[in-house]
Amino acid sequence: MANKEFTHLDATGAAHMVDVGGKSTTTRQATAVAVVQTTPEVVSQISAQLIKKGDVLAVARVAGIMAAKKTSDLVPLCHPLALTKVTIDFALAPEQGQIEISATCAVQGVTGVEMEALTAVSVAALTIHDMCKAVDPRLQINGIQLQEKTGGKQGHWQREHAQHG
Amino acid sequence: MANKEFTHLDATGAAHMVDVGGKSTTTRQATAVAVVQTTPEVVSQISAQLIKKGDVLAVARVAGIMAAKKTSDLVPLCHPLALTKVTIDFALAPEQGQIEISATCAVQGVTGVEMEALTAVSVAALTIHDMCKAVDPRLQINGIQLQEKTGGKQGHWQREHAQHG
Amino acid sequence: MANKEFTHLDATGAAHMVDVGGKSTTTRQATAVAVVQTTPEVVSQISAQLIKKGDVLAVARVAGIMAAKKTSDLVPLCHPLALTKVTIDFALAPEQGQIEISATCAVQGVTGVEMEALTAVSVAALTIHDMCKAVDPRLQINGIQLQEKTGGKQGHWQREHAQHG
Amino acid sequence: MANKEFTHLDATGAAHMVDVGGKSTTTRQATAVAVVQTTPEVVSQISAQLIKKGDVLAVARVAGIMAAKKTSDLVPLCHPLALTKVTIDFALAPEQGQIEISATCAVQGVTGVEMEALTAVSVAALTIHDMCKAVDPRLQINGIQLQEKTGGKQGHWQREHAQHG
Amino acid sequence: MANKEFTHLDATGAAHMVDVGGKSTTTRQATAVAVVQTTPEVVSQISAQLIKKGDVLAVARVAGIMAAKKTSDLVPLCHPLALTKVTIDFALAPEQGQIEISATCAVQGVTGVEMEALTAVSVAALTIHDMCKAVDPRLQINGIQLQEKTGGKQGHWQREHAQHG
Amino acid sequence: MANKEFTHLDATGAAHMVDVGGKSTTTRQATAVAVVQTTPEVVSQISAQLIKKGDVLAVARVAGIMAAKKTSDLVPLCHPLALTKVTIDFALAPEQGQIEISATCAVQGVTGVEMEALTAVSVAALTIHDMCKAVDPRLQINGIQLQEKTGGKQGHWQREHAQHG
Repeated sequence: MANKEFTHLDATGAAHMVDVGGKSTTTRQATAVAVVQTTPEVVSQISAQLIKKGDVLAVARVAGIMAAKKTSDLVPLCHPLALTKVTIDFALAPEQGQIEISATCAVQGVTGVEMEALTAVSVAALTIHDMCKAVDPRLQINGIQLQEKTGGKQGHWQREHAQHG
Repeated sequence: MANKEFTHLDATGAAHMVDVGGKSTTTRQATAVAVVQTTPEVVSQISAQLIKKGDVLAVARVAGIMAAKKTSDLVPLCHPLALTKVTIDFALAPEQGQIEISATCAVQGVTGVEMEALTAVSVAALTIHDMCKAVDPRLQINGIQLQEKTGGKQGHWQREHAQHG
Repeated sequence: MANKEFTHLDATGAAHMVDVGGKSTTTRQATAVAVVQTTPEVVSQISAQLIKKGDVLAVARVAGIMAAKKTSDLVPLCHPLALTKVTIDFALAPEQGQIEISATCAVQGVTGVEMEALTAVSVAALTIHDMCKAVDPRLQINGIQLQEKTGGKQGHWQREHAQHG
Repeated sequence: MANKEFTHLDATGAAHMVDVGGKSTTTRQATAVAVVQTTPEVVSQISAQLIKKGDVLAVARVAGIMAAKKTSDLVPLCHPLALTKVTIDFALAPEQGQIEISATCAVQGVTGVEMEALTAVSVAALTIHDMCKAVDPRLQINGIQLQEKTGGKQGHWQREHAQHG
Repeated sequence: MANKEFTHLDATGAAHMVDVGGKSTTTRQATAVAVVQTTPEVVSQISAQLIKKGDVLAVARVAGIMAAKKTSDLVPLCHPLALTKVTIDFALAPEQGQIEISATCAVQGVTGVEMEALTAVSVAALTIHDMCKAVDPRLQINGIQLQEKTGGKQGHWQREHAQHG
Repeated sequence: MANKEFTHLDATGAAHMVDVGGKSTTTRQATAVAVVQTTPEVVSQISAQLIKKGDVLAVARVAGIMAAKKTSDLVPLCHPLALTKVTIDFALAPEQGQIEISATCAVQGVTGVEMEALTAVSVAALTIHDMCKAVDPRLQINGIQLQEKTGGKQGHWQREHAQHG
């Protein structure tokens, strides 16, 4: 392999998993939310466990927890980490035809867990979509966003307004 | 194991992967969309490839394609299937600080590919979130929804209005 | 790479994923069972949803369904296949402290789905173990076995006795 | 999203990955076993490496080691952890037609590795089932249980009797 | 979402999983090879099963078979497919310190299995590297290439020379 | 399970994931390389982003980063670890028809990251192969090898010659 004329690409701006080796290990926690928009009827059926494919919230909860653990396998530049906690909660607004999903993840580590919480609510929402698409193919998922995080250099961060822009 | 008194749970309403063995194999295609809401500045930086973690749309595109193939591993009751096509497209509205992601998946199979297209746009959006969270932690993902599908018993279905409810 | 003296290992008896390309595509179905042996108290707590980690049977059901889809990723020589159906059922014998798990899988394919059904009951049982190990670390899993299968060259096969040997 | 009337589900008893962030990091080790029940002839064929699909115990050993690393991907509420050791051993009782599988896992971490050892023996046993099902479709897997564990708050725990109940 | 001015990126040249839905289902097979270059001593130790980490070729064989099934999860634009056959063979040239790995994969499908065979030999070679790196950290993997393929529109293709360029 | 005569297999030489629990946690880094051998025309087309399947190097880069995170899932005896950094670089030698890929991985851990760097370059190279196989089915991957590593008991190690043997 001697005498070859290799021209290195300029790696500026190239995708990479950034070096977090020098960051300090602290307890880091993050909470994210998502809102499933369907119809009042569908929220009632979910609530009454009448959806034919099964207990929608129980399945979505397990799907969200398992997805949190797969985050670094899904989001290319996410660092793998050993989550110490994942919880998923649901709140129903039947009149608006809405289900709010929130997820909280924690780790003792060198990087935050925002993406893990965001992935958990996204996959829980997709699971609700899957189980209800026969009764509402028009179902939407909105407002996937970070609500709060603690730990790391920046300390505590909290979303001041629900809406962006 | 004789003489045991097992009481079977009533399996009505229990989660299960429904039997699609009797459905006919046809070409099925689905298109889904998602909208990333950030700031005009961030959309400009993405467009100019100035985000420090790398070329955001190139990475999000690959993430979305790979995620489509993992759908049945993420969404518990989804049937595994051999996708024959996945494409991801991006449209930018810099003034509104928005990026619209659309994904189209196809299969020759017995079940639809709605969830695959929805998973693709969701993970592409999460990847944009991950790469831009340092510059906009308030980034939101909205409007994850099915736009159109063809094939199967129901034939062609198209979303008439962008907004639900 | 010319003039090299390569000695081929005798591949007789070496592990390989056998060629099923010539087998015919038929509807194949298989049912497997497993028995979780714990105490009457634990079965009662599971039944009353009093286990602290959550609704044991709901989580085990989802875990079993998802595991069925991962079979060829776990069992080295299993062929990957597109399952068309997975169902999991539970029967409780509180007096004996037992939970019987059964799983039925189906496919339109060239290989059977015995391993998928067996993997489903095994992982459902492991999930019950995980959720109950704080209250019964001595929990056992027994009787993982095939009960019945249909389809393929051999046609219908049914286990005549519950016990082996 | 203002003025919405969300009713939070009572999360008591809902499945969650419990918070282990406050537990101390120690060396934790666990050993689990499983017994494959087949016929004397099949054990002899395995022992003599005459099973057509390949060297059964070598493949089962690799499958068990790899499965231990997938535990948190299979068992929904298991915490991901970085195993520092996995060993699998086999003991044969040809006259009884039995193969005993034992697995030992270790970690420097905040949670135990019982589920990793149990998953390892289960998947090793499933692999033996897969490779021998052509010669013994009646093969059973029994006695999947924890034998011993060390580390953590509880210290050393050892199973006093082989049989439960 | 009305009145937005979205500018679609020119998708020409963008990565995508190409549409293979119109291609015909035929028996497709491919064979790939790789050569591990180490020292004569290491090849002898492998051959005599003296490497401390275990039976190198048995483990590499299982790793290669399992990797073939993961190809579409590793190579972003590969189509998922249901392999019907995977075999791995080894040939040793102790005097040259070389091990040649070959893998053959087959499918009844609409796309070729070249990448599956190439992935199988690559991961088998990486496994040999892992198990021997303590005794030869300078080990190299060379000559990963397609040898032959059959099926599909192009029919039979065979590599005429071992060396490229 | 009393009175059984189990004969333990001699586990000497059996595959196992070695115990690294006693090793000290240090910053460990490794760099590996691979060389893709194709034709000058193909290197030019890649460089000019004219390959029909998409931007080859952008996709290969993402594939390599994601593969580094999957190393312990691919290579059976590799310990799982939480990578803190992954970078991939490309250098082109169009006249020789060559692309050199290098990958650097780092961790704060008890085991080295050689296999992660080697897996990253291998899968990046396979991805180039996949995207270019329509224009050059004869493409080869050569020279997959470790270049340098730091950290751990052995300290700094650097490859003195490019070629083995």
